[in-house]
Amino acid sequence: MAKKLLDFSKLCVHTLTNKSWNLRECIENYSAAGVHGITIWRNVLEGQNLKECKQILDDHNMMVSGLARGGFFPSTEISKRKEAIDDNLLAIEQSAAVGAPVLVLVCGADGKQSLEKSRDQIQEGILKILPQAKAAGVKLAIEPLHPMYAGDRSAINTLAQANDMAEEINSDFLGVAIDVYHLWWDDNLEKEIKRCGKNKNLMAFHICDWNVPTNDFLNDRGLMGDGCINIPKIRGWVEETGFDGFYEVEIFSNKYWAINQNDYLEKIKKAYLNYT
Amino acid sequence: MAKKLLDFSKLCVHTLTNKSWNLRECIENYSAAGVHGITIWRNVLEGQNLKECKQILDDHNMMVSGLARGGFFPSTEISKRKEAIDDNLLAIEQSAAVGAPVLVLVCGADGKQSLEKSRDQIQEGILKILPQAKAAGVKLAIEPLHPMYAGDRSAINTLAQANDMAEEINSDFLGVAIDVYHLWWDDNLEKEIKRCGKNKNLMAFHICDWNVPTNDFLNDRGLMGDGCINIPKIRGWVEETGFDGFYEVEIFSNKYWAINQNDYLEKIKKAYLNYT
Repeated sequence: MAKKLLDFSKLCVHTLTNKSWNLRECIENYSAAGVHGITIWRNVLEGQNLKECKQILDDHNMMVSGLARGGFFPSTEISKRKEAIDDNLLAIEQSAAVGAPVLVLVCGADGKQSLEKSRDQIQEGILKILPQAKAAGVKLAIEPLHPMYAGDRSAINTLAQANDMAEEINSDFLGVAIDVYHLWWDDNLEKEIKRCGKNKNLMAFHICDWNVPTNDFLNDRGLMGDGCINIPKIRGWVEETGFDGFYEVEIFSNKYWAINQNDYLEKIKKAYLNYT
Repeated sequence: MAKKLLDFSKLCVHTLTNKSWNLRECIENYSAAGVHGITIWRNVLEGQNLKECKQILDDHNMMVSGLARGGFFPSTEISKRKEAIDDNLLAIEQSAAVGAPVLVLVCGADGKQSLEKSRDQIQEGILKILPQAKAAGVKLAIEPLHPMYAGDRSAINTLAQANDMAEEINSDFLGVAIDVYHLWWDDNLEKEIKRCGKNKNLMAFHICDWNVPTNDFLNDRGLMGDGCINIPKIRGWVEETGFDGFYEVEIFSNKYWAINQNDYLEKIKKAYLNYT
Protein backbone atom coordinates (compact mmCIF):
# COMPACT_ATOMS: atom_id res chain seq x y z
CA MET A 1 0.00 0.00 0.00
CA ALA A 2 1.46 3.35 -1.04
CA LYS A 3 2.14 6.20 1.38
CA LYS A 4 -0.48 8.93 1.57
CA LEU A 5 -0.04 11.70 -0.98
CA LEU A 6 0.62 15.04 0.68
CA ASP A 7 0.80 17.52 -2.18
CA PHE A 8 -0.11 17.99 -5.81
CA SER A 9 3.35 17.70 -7.33
CA LYS A 10 2.46 14.44 -9.07
CA LEU A 11 -1.12 15.35 -9.97
CA CYS A 12 -1.95 15.59 -13.64
CA VAL A 13 -5.40 16.09 -15.15
CA HIS A 14 -6.53 14.97 -18.60
CA THR A 15 -8.20 17.80 -20.48
CA LEU A 16 -11.14 15.49 -21.31
CA THR A 17 -11.81 15.20 -17.59
CA ASN A 18 -13.05 18.80 -17.92
CA LYS A 19 -14.67 18.33 -21.29
CA SER A 20 -16.32 21.75 -21.51
CA TRP A 21 -13.03 23.63 -21.11
CA ASN A 22 -10.85 24.51 -24.08
CA LEU A 23 -7.08 24.13 -23.77
CA ARG A 24 -6.52 27.65 -22.48
CA GLU A 25 -9.24 27.22 -19.86
CA CYS A 26 -7.75 23.92 -18.75
CA ILE A 27 -4.29 25.43 -18.46
CA GLU A 28 -5.44 28.56 -16.62
CA ASN A 29 -7.72 26.69 -14.23
CA TYR A 30 -5.31 23.85 -13.50
CA SER A 31 -2.46 26.26 -12.93
CA ALA A 32 -4.55 28.52 -10.69
CA ALA A 33 -5.55 25.45 -8.68
CA GLY A 34 -1.94 24.41 -8.19
CA VAL A 35 -2.11 21.54 -10.64
CA HIS A 36 0.84 21.60 -13.01
CA GLY A 37 0.54 18.29 -14.82
CA ILE A 38 -1.65 18.06 -17.90
CA THR A 39 -2.41 15.41 -20.47
CA ILE A 40 -3.78 16.93 -23.62
CA TRP A 41 -6.54 15.31 -25.62
CA ARG A 42 -6.31 16.09 -29.30
CA ASN A 43 -9.80 17.55 -29.57
CA VAL A 44 -8.59 20.69 -27.75
CA LEU A 45 -5.78 21.14 -30.27
CA GLU A 46 -8.10 21.28 -33.25
CA GLY A 47 -7.77 24.60 -35.05
CA GLN A 48 -5.13 25.83 -32.60
CA ASN A 49 -1.68 27.18 -33.32
CA LEU A 50 0.51 24.63 -31.58
CA LYS A 51 3.35 27.07 -30.97
CA GLU A 52 0.94 29.36 -29.14
CA CYS A 53 -0.38 26.39 -27.16
CA LYS A 54 3.17 25.52 -26.12
CA GLN A 55 3.76 29.13 -25.12
CA ILE A 56 0.63 29.23 -22.94
CA LEU A 57 1.67 25.94 -21.33
CA ASP A 58 5.14 27.31 -20.59
CA ASP A 59 3.77 30.62 -19.32
CA HIS A 60 1.74 28.70 -16.74
CA ASN A 61 4.52 26.29 -15.78
CA MET A 62 2.49 23.37 -17.03
CA MET A 63 4.25 20.06 -17.57
CA VAL A 64 2.69 17.95 -20.29
CA SER A 65 2.57 14.31 -19.25
CA GLY A 66 1.19 12.99 -22.49
CA LEU A 67 -0.96 13.38 -25.55
CA ALA A 68 -4.14 11.33 -25.93
CA ARG A 69 -4.50 9.62 -28.23
CA GLY A 70 -3.09 7.71 -31.16
CA GLY A 71 -3.80 4.15 -32.15
CA PHE A 72 -6.93 2.64 -33.71
CA PHE A 73 -4.76 0.69 -36.13
CA PRO A 74 -6.88 -2.38 -37.01
CA SER A 75 -9.42 -2.53 -39.75
CA THR A 76 -10.53 -5.04 -42.33
CA GLU A 77 -10.13 -2.19 -44.84
CA ILE A 78 -6.62 -1.38 -45.98
CA SER A 79 -7.55 2.25 -46.69
CA LYS A 80 -8.60 2.72 -43.07
CA ARG A 81 -5.38 1.18 -41.82
CA LYS A 82 -3.46 3.67 -43.99
CA GLU A 83 -5.54 6.55 -42.67
CA ALA A 84 -4.73 5.42 -39.14
CA ILE A 85 -1.00 5.54 -39.86
CA ASP A 86 -1.30 9.09 -41.20
CA ASP A 87 -3.33 10.13 -38.18
CA ASN A 88 -0.75 8.63 -35.83
CA LEU A 89 2.06 10.46 -37.60
CA LEU A 90 0.12 13.68 -37.10
CA ALA A 91 -0.35 12.81 -33.43
CA ILE A 92 3.41 12.32 -33.07
CA GLU A 93 3.99 15.77 -34.58
CA GLN A 94 1.42 17.29 -32.25
CA SER A 95 3.03 15.58 -29.25
CA ALA A 96 6.41 17.01 -30.14
CA ALA A 97 4.94 20.47 -30.77
CA VAL A 98 3.29 20.74 -27.35
CA GLY A 99 6.13 19.03 -25.50
CA ALA A 100 4.33 15.78 -24.72
CA PRO A 101 6.97 13.11 -24.04
CA VAL A 102 4.45 10.30 -24.49
CA LEU A 103 1.69 9.55 -26.99
CA VAL A 104 -0.89 7.20 -25.53
CA LEU A 105 -2.15 4.52 -27.91
CA VAL A 106 -5.73 3.26 -27.72
CA CYS A 107 -4.86 0.47 -30.05
CA GLY A 108 -8.19 -0.32 -31.69
CA ALA A 109 -10.09 -3.43 -32.74
CA ASP A 110 -12.33 -4.41 -35.61
CA GLY A 111 -15.14 -6.77 -34.63
CA LYS A 112 -15.28 -8.05 -38.22
CA GLN A 113 -12.02 -9.91 -37.70
CA SER A 114 -10.39 -11.91 -34.91
CA LEU A 115 -8.62 -10.32 -31.98
CA GLU A 116 -5.43 -12.05 -33.10
CA LYS A 117 -5.70 -10.42 -36.52
CA SER A 118 -6.36 -7.03 -34.91
CA ARG A 119 -3.34 -7.47 -32.68
CA ASP A 120 -1.17 -8.28 -35.69
CA GLN A 121 -2.36 -5.06 -37.33
CA ILE A 122 -1.65 -3.11 -34.15
CA GLN A 123 1.90 -4.41 -34.09
CA GLU A 124 2.29 -3.63 -37.79
CA GLY A 125 0.99 -0.10 -37.21
CA ILE A 126 3.30 0.56 -34.28
CA LEU A 127 6.31 -0.65 -36.27
CA LYS A 128 5.36 1.72 -39.08
CA ILE A 129 5.19 4.84 -36.89
CA LEU A 130 8.03 4.03 -34.50
CA PRO A 131 10.83 5.59 -36.61
CA GLN A 132 8.99 8.93 -36.67
CA ALA A 133 8.27 8.69 -32.94
CA LYS A 134 11.96 8.14 -32.29
CA ALA A 135 12.96 10.98 -34.59
CA ALA A 136 10.53 13.29 -32.80
CA GLY A 137 11.63 12.14 -29.34
CA VAL A 138 8.10 11.00 -28.51
CA LYS A 139 7.51 7.69 -26.74
CA LEU A 140 4.51 5.50 -27.61
CA ALA A 141 2.55 3.91 -24.77
CA ILE A 142 0.28 0.93 -25.44
CA GLU A 143 -2.72 1.29 -23.14
CA PRO A 144 -4.54 -1.99 -22.54
CA LEU A 145 -8.30 -1.38 -22.44
CA HIS A 146 -10.88 -3.22 -20.36
CA PRO A 147 -12.17 -6.43 -22.01
CA MET A 148 -15.56 -4.75 -22.42
CA TYR A 149 -13.92 -2.75 -25.24
CA ALA A 150 -12.50 -5.78 -27.07
CA GLY A 151 -15.22 -5.61 -29.73
CA ASP A 152 -14.45 -2.17 -31.05
CA ARG A 153 -11.80 -0.17 -29.15
CA SER A 154 -8.86 -2.37 -28.30
CA ALA A 155 -7.76 -5.91 -28.98
CA ILE A 156 -5.17 -5.42 -26.22
CA ASN A 157 -7.09 -6.02 -23.01
CA THR A 158 -4.56 -7.04 -20.39
CA LEU A 159 -1.26 -5.63 -19.25
CA ALA A 160 0.25 -9.01 -20.11
CA GLN A 161 -0.68 -8.50 -23.76
CA ALA A 162 0.68 -4.93 -23.76
CA ASN A 163 3.90 -6.11 -22.11
CA ASP A 164 4.21 -8.94 -24.63
CA MET A 165 3.97 -6.53 -27.53
CA ALA A 166 6.28 -3.91 -26.02
CA GLU A 167 8.90 -6.54 -25.27
CA GLU A 168 8.64 -8.13 -28.68
CA ILE A 169 9.10 -4.80 -30.48
CA ASN A 170 11.73 -3.86 -27.91
CA SER A 171 12.35 -0.16 -28.45
CA ASP A 172 13.23 2.61 -25.99
CA PHE A 173 10.41 4.51 -27.63
CA LEU A 174 7.68 1.99 -26.90
CA GLY A 175 6.14 1.09 -23.54
CA VAL A 176 2.81 0.75 -21.79
CA ALA A 177 0.26 2.96 -20.03
CA ILE A 178 -1.57 1.62 -16.98
CA ASP A 179 -5.11 2.77 -16.27
CA VAL A 180 -6.64 1.38 -13.08
CA TYR A 181 -10.11 1.53 -14.69
CA HIS A 182 -9.13 -0.98 -17.34
CA LEU A 183 -6.97 -3.30 -15.27
CA TRP A 184 -8.14 -3.33 -11.63
CA TRP A 185 -9.98 -6.68 -11.96
CA ASP A 186 -6.96 -8.62 -13.27
CA ASP A 187 -5.35 -10.98 -10.77
CA ASN A 188 -2.11 -10.81 -12.76
CA LEU A 189 -1.87 -7.04 -12.37
CA GLU A 190 0.79 -6.88 -9.66
CA LYS A 191 2.98 -9.34 -11.53
CA GLU A 192 2.58 -7.50 -14.83
CA ILE A 193 3.28 -4.09 -13.27
CA LYS A 194 6.52 -5.48 -11.88
CA ARG A 195 7.29 -6.87 -15.30
CA CYS A 196 6.84 -3.59 -17.18
CA GLY A 197 8.73 -1.74 -14.46
CA LYS A 198 11.67 -4.09 -14.72
CA ASN A 199 11.76 -3.67 -18.48
CA LYS A 200 11.57 0.15 -18.24
CA ASN A 201 8.33 0.01 -20.14
CA LEU A 202 6.02 1.80 -17.69
CA MET A 203 5.31 5.19 -19.23
CA ALA A 204 2.03 6.45 -17.78
CA PHE A 205 -0.31 5.83 -14.87
CA HIS A 206 -3.99 6.82 -15.14
CA ILE A 207 -6.42 6.95 -12.22
CA CYS A 208 -10.17 7.13 -11.66
CA ASP A 209 -12.62 4.69 -10.08
CA TRP A 210 -15.05 1.93 -11.08
CA ASN A 211 -18.60 2.82 -10.03
CA VAL A 212 -20.78 0.07 -8.53
CA PRO A 213 -23.00 -0.26 -10.45
CA THR A 214 -21.61 1.19 -13.66
CA ASN A 215 -24.33 2.37 -16.02
CA ASP A 216 -22.62 3.47 -19.20
CA PHE A 217 -19.92 1.81 -21.26
CA LEU A 218 -17.98 5.02 -21.74
CA ASN A 219 -19.00 7.92 -19.55
CA ASP A 220 -19.73 6.61 -16.08
CA ARG A 221 -16.25 6.57 -14.59
CA GLY A 222 -15.96 7.45 -10.94
CA LEU A 223 -13.82 9.96 -9.12
CA MET A 224 -11.23 8.28 -6.90
CA GLY A 225 -13.07 7.01 -3.83
CA ASP A 226 -16.46 6.75 -5.55
CA GLY A 227 -16.07 3.12 -6.49
CA CYS A 228 -14.41 -0.18 -5.74
CA ILE A 229 -10.84 0.14 -7.02
CA ASN A 230 -8.11 -0.04 -4.40
CA ILE A 231 -6.04 2.73 -6.00
CA PRO A 232 -3.46 3.10 -3.20
CA LYS A 233 -2.61 -0.58 -3.55
CA ILE A 234 -2.10 -0.32 -7.30
CA ARG A 235 -0.19 2.97 -6.90
CA GLY A 236 2.07 1.16 -4.44
CA TRP A 237 2.89 -1.47 -7.06
CA VAL A 238 3.55 1.25 -9.62
CA GLU A 239 5.82 3.18 -7.26
CA GLU A 240 7.74 0.04 -6.35
CA THR A 241 8.90 -0.15 -9.96
CA GLY A 242 10.60 3.21 -9.55
CA PHE A 243 8.01 4.99 -11.69
CA ASP A 244 8.35 8.72 -11.10
CA GLY A 245 5.86 10.15 -13.55
CA PHE A 246 2.53 11.85 -12.97
CA TYR A 247 -0.65 10.30 -11.58
CA GLU A 248 -3.08 11.26 -14.30
CA VAL A 249 -6.75 11.82 -13.52
CA GLU A 250 -8.71 10.63 -16.55
CA ILE A 251 -12.45 10.60 -15.88
CA PHE A 252 -15.19 10.44 -18.50
CA SER A 253 -18.35 11.15 -16.58
CA ASN A 254 -21.68 12.57 -17.64
CA LYS A 255 -22.32 13.20 -13.95
CA TYR A 256 -19.19 15.24 -13.32
CA TRP A 257 -19.23 16.96 -16.71
CA ALA A 258 -22.60 18.42 -15.67
CA ILE A 259 -21.35 20.23 -12.56
CA ASN A 260 -19.36 23.44 -12.15
CA GLN A 261 -15.90 22.52 -13.40
CA ASN A 262 -13.98 24.58 -10.88
CA ASP A 263 -15.85 22.92 -8.03
CA TYR A 264 -15.11 19.61 -9.72
CA LEU A 265 -11.41 20.41 -9.88
CA GLU A 266 -11.43 20.96 -6.12
CA LYS A 267 -13.21 17.61 -5.67
CA ILE A 268 -10.53 15.99 -7.80
CA LYS A 269 -7.79 17.49 -5.61
CA LYS A 270 -9.50 16.27 -2.45
CA ALA A 271 -10.05 12.79 -3.89
CA TYR A 272 -6.45 12.75 -5.05
CA LEU A 273 -5.16 13.29 -1.51
CA ASN A 274 -7.68 10.99 0.19
CA TYR A 275 -8.30 8.08 -2.14
CA THR A 276 -5.27 7.78 -4.39
CA MET B 1 -13.33 -25.02 -35.98
CA ALA B 2 -16.30 -27.23 -35.15
CA LYS B 3 -18.36 -29.05 -37.77
CA LYS B 4 -21.60 -27.41 -38.85
CA LEU B 5 -24.59 -28.28 -36.67
CA LEU B 6 -27.26 -30.14 -38.64
CA ASP B 7 -30.10 -30.65 -36.17
CA PHE B 8 -31.44 -29.40 -32.86
CA SER B 9 -30.55 -32.38 -30.70
CA LYS B 10 -28.01 -30.31 -28.72
CA LEU B 11 -30.01 -27.09 -28.64
CA CYS B 12 -31.14 -25.87 -25.24
CA VAL B 13 -32.82 -22.55 -24.51
CA HIS B 14 -32.71 -20.65 -21.22
CA THR B 15 -36.18 -19.65 -20.10
CA LEU B 16 -34.94 -16.09 -19.52
CA THR B 17 -34.16 -15.87 -23.23
CA ASN B 18 -37.95 -15.74 -23.63
CA LYS B 19 -38.58 -13.60 -20.59
CA SER B 20 -42.28 -13.01 -21.17
CA TRP B 21 -43.11 -16.72 -21.20
CA ASN B 22 -43.90 -18.62 -18.01
CA LEU B 23 -42.48 -22.12 -17.56
CA ARG B 24 -45.43 -23.87 -19.20
CA GLU B 25 -45.26 -21.54 -22.20
CA CYS B 26 -41.53 -22.13 -22.54
CA ILE B 27 -41.98 -25.89 -22.39
CA GLU B 28 -44.89 -25.99 -24.82
CA ASN B 29 -43.31 -23.62 -27.32
CA TYR B 30 -39.83 -25.17 -27.19
CA SER B 31 -41.23 -28.66 -27.53
CA ALA B 32 -43.50 -27.66 -30.41
CA ALA B 33 -40.50 -26.08 -32.14
CA GLY B 34 -38.46 -29.25 -31.78
CA VAL B 35 -36.24 -27.89 -29.03
CA HIS B 36 -35.95 -30.38 -26.19
CA GLY B 37 -33.25 -28.85 -24.01
CA ILE B 38 -34.20 -26.28 -21.41
CA THR B 39 -32.37 -24.41 -18.68
CA ILE B 40 -34.77 -23.13 -16.09
CA TRP B 41 -34.37 -19.76 -14.44
CA ARG B 42 -35.71 -19.70 -10.93
CA ASN B 43 -38.10 -16.79 -11.52
CA VAL B 44 -40.39 -19.12 -13.51
CA LEU B 45 -40.52 -21.56 -10.58
CA GLU B 46 -41.85 -18.99 -8.14
CA GLY B 47 -45.26 -20.02 -6.79
CA GLN B 48 -45.24 -23.22 -8.84
CA ASN B 49 -45.73 -26.78 -7.69
CA LEU B 50 -42.40 -28.35 -8.62
CA LYS B 51 -43.84 -31.85 -9.01
CA GLU B 52 -46.28 -30.50 -11.56
CA CYS B 53 -43.47 -28.66 -13.32
CA LYS B 54 -41.50 -31.88 -13.56
CA GLN B 55 -44.57 -33.67 -14.92
CA ILE B 56 -45.08 -31.03 -17.64
CA LEU B 57 -41.40 -31.27 -18.55
CA ASP B 58 -41.64 -35.04 -18.81
CA ASP B 59 -44.87 -34.91 -20.75
CA HIS B 60 -43.13 -32.80 -23.38
CA ASN B 61 -39.93 -34.84 -23.46
CA MET B 62 -37.93 -31.89 -22.21
CA MET B 63 -34.45 -32.48 -20.90
CA VAL B 64 -33.38 -30.03 -18.26
CA SER B 65 -29.78 -28.97 -18.80
CA GLY B 66 -29.50 -26.82 -15.69
CA LEU B 67 -31.02 -24.47 -13.19
CA ALA B 68 -30.01 -20.81 -13.15
CA ARG B 69 -28.91 -19.66 -10.72
CA GLY B 70 -27.27 -19.99 -7.34
CA GLY B 71 -24.28 -18.14 -6.02
CA PHE B 72 -23.99 -14.51 -4.88
CA PHE B 73 -22.02 -15.66 -1.84
CA PRO B 74 -19.87 -12.63 -0.95
CA SER B 75 -20.93 -9.80 1.27
CA THR B 76 -19.31 -7.64 3.90
CA GLU B 77 -22.37 -8.50 6.03
CA ILE B 78 -22.40 -11.90 7.68
CA SER B 79 -26.22 -12.01 7.69
CA LYS B 80 -26.28 -11.65 3.91
CA ARG B 81 -23.74 -14.42 3.52
CA LYS B 82 -25.97 -16.67 5.62
CA GLU B 83 -29.02 -15.73 3.55
CA ALA B 84 -27.06 -16.66 0.44
CA ILE B 85 -26.30 -20.12 1.82
CA ASP B 86 -30.00 -20.68 2.56
CA ASP B 87 -30.95 -19.51 -0.89
CA ASN B 88 -28.41 -21.83 -2.49
CA LEU B 89 -29.71 -24.80 -0.50
CA LEU B 90 -33.18 -23.97 -1.80
CA ALA B 91 -31.80 -23.79 -5.34
CA ILE B 92 -30.27 -27.24 -4.92
CA GLU B 93 -33.66 -28.60 -3.81
CA GLN B 94 -35.33 -26.93 -6.78
CA SER B 95 -32.73 -28.38 -9.15
CA ALA B 96 -33.35 -31.89 -7.85
CA ALA B 97 -37.12 -31.41 -8.00
CA VAL B 98 -37.19 -30.42 -11.68
CA GLY B 99 -34.47 -32.85 -12.69
CA ALA B 100 -31.73 -30.32 -13.35
CA PRO B 101 -28.37 -32.10 -13.14
CA VAL B 102 -26.47 -28.83 -12.78
CA LEU B 103 -26.96 -25.66 -10.75
CA VAL B 104 -25.15 -22.71 -12.34
CA LEU B 105 -23.40 -20.40 -9.88
CA VAL B 106 -23.13 -16.69 -10.56
CA CYS B 107 -20.71 -16.35 -7.74
CA GLY B 108 -21.16 -12.75 -6.64
CA ALA B 109 -18.92 -9.88 -5.56
CA ASP B 110 -19.14 -7.07 -3.05
CA GLY B 111 -17.48 -3.85 -4.19
CA LYS B 112 -16.97 -2.84 -0.57
CA GLN B 113 -14.24 -5.46 -0.18
CA SER B 114 -11.39 -6.78 -2.32
CA LEU B 115 -11.88 -9.33 -5.07
CA GLU B 116 -9.60 -11.69 -3.12
CA LYS B 117 -11.86 -11.43 -0.07
CA SER B 118 -14.94 -12.03 -2.24
CA ARG B 119 -13.29 -15.07 -3.79
CA ASP B 120 -12.51 -16.46 -0.34
CA GLN B 121 -16.18 -16.07 0.58
CA ILE B 122 -17.24 -17.75 -2.65
CA GLN B 123 -15.04 -20.73 -1.86
CA GLU B 124 -16.38 -20.82 1.69
CA GLY B 125 -19.95 -20.71 0.40
CA ILE B 126 -19.41 -23.49 -2.10
CA LEU B 127 -17.83 -25.70 0.55
CA LYS B 128 -20.85 -25.11 2.77
CA ILE B 129 -23.44 -26.19 0.17
CA LEU B 130 -21.45 -28.96 -1.50
CA PRO B 131 -22.58 -31.77 0.85
CA GLN B 132 -26.24 -31.02 0.11
CA ALA B 133 -25.51 -30.79 -3.61
CA LYS B 134 -23.88 -34.20 -3.50
CA ALA B 135 -26.73 -35.68 -1.46
CA ALA B 136 -29.22 -34.29 -3.99
CA GLY B 137 -27.20 -35.49 -6.97
CA VAL B 138 -26.89 -31.92 -8.29
CA LYS B 139 -23.59 -30.63 -9.67
CA LEU B 140 -22.50 -27.05 -9.07
CA ALA B 141 -20.99 -25.11 -11.97
CA ILE B 142 -18.91 -21.99 -11.33
CA GLU B 143 -19.62 -19.58 -14.18
CA PRO B 144 -16.89 -16.97 -14.62
CA LEU B 145 -18.46 -13.63 -15.52
CA HIS B 146 -17.02 -10.93 -17.78
CA PRO B 147 -14.64 -8.54 -15.97
CA MET B 148 -17.22 -5.77 -16.43
CA TYR B 149 -19.18 -7.52 -13.66
CA ALA B 150 -16.29 -7.71 -11.19
CA GLY B 151 -17.66 -4.83 -9.13
CA ASP B 152 -20.97 -6.39 -8.20
CA ARG B 153 -21.77 -9.73 -9.82
CA SER B 154 -18.76 -11.99 -9.79
CA ALA B 155 -15.24 -11.89 -8.44
CA ILE B 156 -14.49 -14.85 -10.69
CA ASN B 157 -13.85 -13.31 -14.09
CA THR B 158 -11.72 -15.76 -16.03
CA LEU B 159 -11.95 -19.46 -16.74
CA ALA B 160 -8.52 -19.78 -15.13
CA GLN B 161 -9.95 -18.53 -11.82
CA ALA B 162 -12.94 -20.86 -12.08
CA ASN B 163 -10.66 -23.79 -12.90
CA ASP B 164 -8.38 -22.91 -10.00
CA MET B 165 -11.27 -22.99 -7.56
CA ALA B 166 -12.84 -26.15 -8.96
CA GLU B 167 -9.51 -27.95 -8.83
CA GLU B 168 -8.71 -26.76 -5.33
CA ILE B 169 -12.08 -27.93 -3.97
CA ASN B 170 -11.76 -31.07 -6.11
CA SER B 171 -15.20 -32.66 -5.99
CA ASP B 172 -17.12 -34.65 -8.60
CA PHE B 173 -19.99 -32.32 -7.79
CA LEU B 174 -18.20 -29.08 -8.67
CA GLY B 175 -17.13 -27.84 -12.09
CA VAL B 176 -17.37 -24.83 -14.39
CA ALA B 177 -19.81 -23.32 -16.87
CA ILE B 178 -18.46 -21.63 -20.00
CA ASP B 179 -20.36 -18.73 -21.51
CA VAL B 180 -18.86 -17.32 -24.70
CA TYR B 181 -20.23 -13.85 -23.81
CA HIS B 182 -18.09 -13.67 -20.69
CA LEU B 183 -14.94 -15.31 -21.98
CA TRP B 184 -14.53 -14.72 -25.72
CA TRP B 185 -11.92 -11.94 -25.30
CA ASP B 186 -9.53 -14.04 -23.18
CA ASP B 187 -6.39 -15.21 -24.98
CA ASN B 188 -6.07 -18.05 -22.46
CA LEU B 189 -9.49 -19.44 -23.33
CA GLU B 190 -8.43 -22.37 -25.49
CA LYS B 191 -5.86 -23.46 -22.91
CA GLU B 192 -8.34 -23.17 -20.04
CA ILE B 193 -11.09 -25.05 -21.90
CA LYS B 194 -8.63 -27.89 -22.45
CA ARG B 195 -7.76 -27.74 -18.77
CA CYS B 196 -11.33 -28.02 -17.50
CA GLY B 197 -12.07 -30.72 -20.02
CA LYS B 198 -9.09 -32.77 -18.92
CA ASN B 199 -10.18 -32.47 -15.30
CA LYS B 200 -13.79 -33.47 -16.11
CA ASN B 201 -14.89 -30.08 -14.85
CA LEU B 202 -16.74 -28.77 -17.92
CA MET B 203 -20.43 -28.88 -17.02
CA ALA B 204 -22.21 -26.33 -19.20
CA PHE B 205 -21.71 -24.35 -22.42
CA HIS B 206 -23.68 -21.14 -22.97
CA ILE B 207 -23.90 -19.31 -26.28
CA CYS B 208 -24.98 -15.89 -27.56
CA ASP B 209 -23.02 -13.06 -29.21
CA TRP B 210 -21.27 -9.80 -28.31
CA ASN B 211 -22.85 -6.88 -30.12
CA VAL B 212 -20.56 -4.21 -31.60
CA PRO B 213 -21.19 -1.75 -30.09
CA THR B 214 -22.80 -3.04 -26.91
CA ASN B 215 -25.08 -0.48 -25.29
CA ASP B 216 -26.25 -1.96 -22.04
CA PHE B 217 -24.36 -3.75 -19.30
CA LEU B 218 -26.97 -6.48 -18.92
CA ASN B 219 -29.57 -6.65 -21.64
CA ASP B 220 -27.87 -6.07 -24.97
CA ARG B 221 -26.62 -9.55 -25.76
CA GLY B 222 -26.69 -10.61 -29.38
CA LEU B 223 -28.16 -13.63 -31.10
CA MET B 224 -25.45 -15.88 -32.53
CA GLY B 225 -24.19 -14.19 -35.70
CA ASP B 226 -25.16 -10.68 -34.62
CA GLY B 227 -21.80 -9.83 -33.12
CA CYS B 228 -18.09 -10.53 -33.08
CA ILE B 229 -17.68 -13.84 -31.22
CA ASN B 230 -16.29 -16.73 -33.23
CA ILE B 231 -18.66 -19.27 -31.68
CA PRO B 232 -17.79 -22.22 -33.95
CA LYS B 233 -14.14 -21.86 -32.94
CA ILE B 234 -14.97 -21.92 -29.24
CA ARG B 235 -17.49 -24.74 -29.72
CA GLY B 236 -14.72 -26.69 -31.44
CA TRP B 237 -12.50 -26.32 -28.37
CA VAL B 238 -15.37 -27.39 -26.15
CA GLU B 239 -16.14 -30.45 -28.28
CA GLU B 240 -12.48 -31.47 -28.38
CA THR B 241 -12.67 -32.00 -24.61
CA GLY B 242 -15.33 -34.67 -25.16
CA PHE B 243 -18.10 -32.43 -23.81
CA ASP B 244 -21.43 -33.94 -24.85
CA GLY B 245 -23.90 -31.64 -23.11
CA PHE B 246 -26.28 -29.08 -24.55
CA TYR B 247 -25.41 -25.83 -26.29
CA GLU B 248 -27.48 -23.43 -24.24
CA VAL B 249 -28.84 -20.23 -25.75
CA GLU B 250 -28.81 -17.60 -23.01
CA ILE B 251 -29.65 -14.15 -24.36
CA PHE B 252 -30.73 -11.16 -22.30
CA SER B 253 -31.89 -8.63 -24.86
CA ASN B 254 -34.31 -5.77 -24.65
CA LYS B 255 -34.40 -5.87 -28.45
CA TYR B 256 -35.36 -9.52 -28.75
CA TRP B 257 -37.65 -9.51 -25.72
CA ALA B 258 -39.73 -6.90 -27.56
CA ILE B 259 -40.52 -9.06 -30.60
CA ASN B 260 -42.94 -11.95 -31.07
CA GLN B 261 -41.39 -14.76 -29.08
CA ASN B 262 -42.35 -17.56 -31.46
CA ASP B 263 -40.75 -15.68 -34.34
CA TYR B 264 -37.74 -15.17 -32.11
CA LEU B 265 -37.51 -18.88 -31.38
CA GLU B 266 -37.36 -19.54 -35.12
CA LYS B 267 -34.58 -16.94 -35.42
CA ILE B 268 -32.73 -18.71 -32.62
CA LYS B 269 -33.01 -22.04 -34.44
CA LYS B 270 -31.72 -20.50 -37.65
CA ALA B 271 -28.85 -18.74 -35.88
CA TYR B 272 -28.05 -21.98 -34.07
CA LEU B 273 -27.56 -23.85 -37.35
CA ASN B 274 -25.76 -21.03 -39.16
CA TYR B 275 -23.58 -19.26 -36.60
CA THR B 276 -22.92 -21.71 -33.80
